[in-house]
Amino acid sequence: MAFLKVVPLERALNIVNSLPLNAKIEEIPLENALGRILAEDVTSPVNVPPFDRATVDGYAVKSENTWNANESNPVRLKVIGEVHAGEEPNIEINSGEAVYISTGAVLPKGTDAVIEFEIVDREGDEVLIYKPIYPQAGVMKAGTDIPKGKLLLKKGMKLGFKETALLSAVGLEKVKVFAKPKIAIISTGNEVILPGEELKPGKIYDINGRALNDAVKELGGDPHFLGIARDNEESLRTKILEGLKYDIVLLSGGASGGTRDLTASIIDELGEVRIHGIAIQPGKPTIIGVINEKAIFGLPGYPTSCLTNFTLLVAPLIRKLLGGEFKIEYTRKRLTHKVFSVKGRRQFLPVKIKEETAIPIMKGSGAITSFINADGFVEVPENVEILEEGEEVNVILFKF
Amino acid sequence: MAFLKVVPLERALNIVNSLPLNAKIEEIPLENALGRILAEDVTSPVNVPPFDRATVDGYAVKSENTWNANESNPVRLKVIGEVHAGEEPNIEINSGEAVYISTGAVLPKGTDAVIEFEIVDREGDEVLIYKPIYPQAGVMKAGTDIPKGKLLLKKGMKLGFKETALLSAVGLEKVKVFAKPKIAIISTGNEVILPGEELKPGKIYDINGRALNDAVKELGGDPHFLGIARDNEESLRTKILEGLKYDIVLLSGGASGGTRDLTASIIDELGEVRIHGIAIQPGKPTIIGVINEKAIFGLPGYPTSCLTNFTLLVAPLIRKLLGGEFKIEYTRKRLTHKVFSVKGRRQFLPVKIKEETAIPIMKGSGAITSFINADGFVEVPENVEILEEGEEVNVILFKF
Repeated sequence: MAFLKVVPLERALNIVNSLPLNAKIEEIPLENALGRILAEDVTSPVNVPPFDRATVDGYAVKSENTWNANESNPVRLKVIGEVHAGEEPNIEINSGEAVYISTGAVLPKGTDAVIEFEIVDREGDEVLIYKPIYPQAGVMKAGTDIPKGKLLLKKGMKLGFKETALLSAVGLEKVKVFAKPKIAIISTGNEVILPGEELKPGKIYDINGRALNDAVKELGGDPHFLGIARDNEESLRTKILEGLKYDIVLLSGGASGGTRDLTASIIDELGEVRIHGIAIQPGKPTIIGVINEKAIFGLPGYPTSCLTNFTLLVAPLIRKLLGGEFKIEYTRKRLTHKVFSVKGRRQFLPVKIKEETAIPIMKGSGAITSFINADGFVEVPENVEILEEGEEVNVILFKF
Repeated sequence: MAFLKVVPLERALNIVNSLPLNAKIEEIPLENALGRILAEDVTSPVNVPPFDRATVDGYAVKSENTWNANESNPVRLKVIGEVHAGEEPNIEINSGEAVYISTGAVLPKGTDAVIEFEIVDREGDEVLIYKPIYPQAGVMKAGTDIPKGKLLLKKGMKLGFKETALLSAVGLEKVKVFAKPKIAIISTGNEVILPGEELKPGKIYDINGRALNDAVKELGGDPHFLGIARDNEESLRTKILEGLKYDIVLLSGGASGGTRDLTASIIDELGEVRIHGIAIQPGKPTIIGVINEKAIFGLPGYPTSCLTNFTLLVAPLIRKLLGGEFKIEYTRKRLTHKVFSVKGRRQFLPVKIKEETAIPIMKGSGAITSFINADGFVEVPENVEILEEGEEVNVILFKF
């Protein structure tokens, strides 16, 4: 393994962005499309409505036949048939004729308007009309709602219930979306056990496995939690090899520094370590490597540190694989308290968000509760020692 | 069927709220819990950490042994063993002794502090300490992160990745959540076909089936789309009977008024119609009934009308079945344009939301595009004819 220097965050991000992973597209049934990201512009293959459609129950007429009508001298038209929703009408009317039509039905040939049944009278096979109606009254013309060929939805948008309904409206039963990146998740450590197992002396329950799995799911990825690797070469290698069935492998470190070195040497043996240390706190020990075109991340063990580095480095990659931009999303908030940092270190401190303010969480990064209470973290630049109360700062949210 | 009057919205909501449906609770594995609603308060069954835990790699010592240490006269302690993360230590130290300890390991008996290996020297089996350390330095005491019995999460909260991680941290492999209400969805109409089918003359593609299915899913319910019932008694009865396997049946009307009467008479035959018409627009023809303790809603056919009534009447019921409050959620926005309404009618008009404003959508409710563009709808009270530009109004969001 080549000697690798601790690199600045920007350099690390460039390296992650240049990993050999690309967005993949898959075609799925519309019924599974809710929440997925569209991978193509969608234009309408049909007119909506597909035909001139009655918008009321009543009589389809030639509108010009009604123009002389008034209350005392109603126009009388002969009703020559009926047409209902879902039927193909084979009636054509001539001047002086009308057809009973129900809402949603196709306007028969020769007609250009529909008059509501509530405002006319019926006498035998005649309908009496008391006022003129204008052409297209009671009609929705073919394609006026959505013309064939219209751009409906743009590539990159997340499909909500309105979008899936729109795709249904134009008859599309399948849709192209970005494939969910498949992500293997491995916790490491001799002390770590899974929920439900007996808590023997010296053991602690796993946190990062569940946190990373569910954060990946919230981001729109497809997580596969592979359980816990022990702090030895065989266990780590076995789990890493199992992880290579997926696009990305996320390891979260046990507490021990030795595991990190083991992880790096296994990656180096199977592929290439691209980063071994980033000049940020937390995250200095983070490892990034490539094995057979699969990306592998060794994240810190403390939950806050692990999720901070996931948010900084892995979340942008997942967003890119889902067709989005590779970038860290910042928001601006005001600090409620003064924060001290160490000059010469770029630090990320957990904060709780309340409206437009960020409340620093002063517990150590080893505390689970500092992670649970955090809504994100604030960036303290290298050359800064103190962030003042009320200062506006960059905050990165745990928001997927 | 008893003669049923059109009722005010408040009365309709009271009737919906008194339907014989109640929230159900189920226990599920933690790995499926993301996004579900907690049905119990959760307290921690364990201390976190479960033992006094080293937070650095170094030497576990009796802190009082170091109090005389300084740069020129280091204290020398005899290293009598090692303890690593995950191990149960069976070492007890006496005054003048130390134990090598790795991060995450259990503090051995007789020790009360850990000094980092970077700031000491090792000579053979002795460690040289150059400065005093205080009790609990380098140690996280048992239960200081989360004490056993602490209230962690409250009933009714939605589980995000931080909450599932917290449940994992305290070793809970199962969690009680509100069961997703099972909701059957039926579209009706002779003219309605499903996406992927051939668009023959007179036919249109279904919209409401997909819209209701996916809106229910976004709300946290479990939708089952049963396809399309035709405008005849047998087809409607068959689909309604199939729907009664679920908790709630949502029918969305075909365009025809006749279907509504058929639906009402089938409900009346199988159970009881509780509402046949609500004094709102859109929504006047809405039917609400009960069959064998299952609720059945006959919603309007036009997409905007259908989803408006779903949001007003069905969404509060689903929220209640998921442990929440039965209520309509309003937000306040400013109108960008004057809106005319009809005095004596309580109207709901589709609007697009842009920041703090609501932009009225003036297309007819028959247009799919007016539904697709709407983010919600504004309420125009009965006694109001005009809402002025800039006026603050009640908006109900299509937000599930």
